[in-house]
Amino acid sequence: MNTSDDQNSIFPKGERASADYFTGTVWVKMLIPNDPNLNCQIANVVFEPGARNNWHTHPGGQILIAIDGIGYYQEKGKHIQLLHKGDVVKILPDVVHWHGASHVSEFTHIAINPNTQKGIVTWLERVTDEEYKKYAP
Amino acid sequence: MNTSDDQNSIFPKGERASADYFTGTVWVKMLIPNDPNLNCQIANVVFEPGARNNWHTHPGGQILIAIDGIGYYQEKGKHIQLLHKGDVVKILPDVVHWHGASHVSEFTHIAINPNTQKGIVTWLERVTDEEYKKYAP
Repeated sequence: MNTSDDQNSIFPKGERASADYFTGTVWVKMLIPNDPNLNCQIANVVFEPGARNNWHTHPGGQILIAIDGIGYYQEKGKHIQLLHKGDVVKILPDVVHWHGASHVSEFTHIAINPNTQKGIVTWLERVTDEEYKKYAP
Repeated sequence: MNTSDDQNSIFPKGERASADYFTGTVWVKMLIPNDPNLNCQIANVVFEPGARNNWHTHPGGQILIAIDGIGYYQEKGKHIQLLHKGDVVKILPDVVHWHGASHVSEFTHIAINPNTQKGIVTWLERVTDEEYKKYAP
């Protein structure tokens, strides 16, 4: 399912992300499907305000590149970190984390999964409203 | 050396690229330096009109994501391909290629090098003006 695309955005919005692993409305446009020659998968993800993914890990790590809006990123046991356009997040293998939009703004990032020969993602529990609301500016 | 940055661009322009491997003015902003945990290096590259890199290969392959302007991409023995914002190029390991701006427009792409445990880049000969001018719309 596609929506009409913002003319200023770099990529089309893509497909609705599964409610099994995401809270709120999230759109995923696959840019590079997992490729055994590159061991890499790349997607553009648009989170509507308040939307986020579940806690999860990547066996090969992940890099996020924020390209629009304002987002949140949290590693287990640490504070929620604010993300703006141009910010880059390096996520080491097996680090438990989540990411999504802030309360007030849509958020778009490119997600790069390297080392996919080790696997891509292990989904964990949902990020509760209580956890999400803990962002303190 | 930095220049004043375009407020609409996602990343700062970064450093001037080496004249040994680039023709014309090119700016490289390293986003993720090569990392042994991620086996990945990511940079944002801005090419001024007419600028391009030398012919080269990547032992682990490469992905280009065009984010602004109009660019050229060519694999050895094929025609020059036009790149616009949102285009994604998958470059297989050891494929001889070059990329850069078009004649008429600046061009910005994100360059993702996966599998850096195999090496990052092998630089080859310069892209001559004759080769560069072969783009035929």
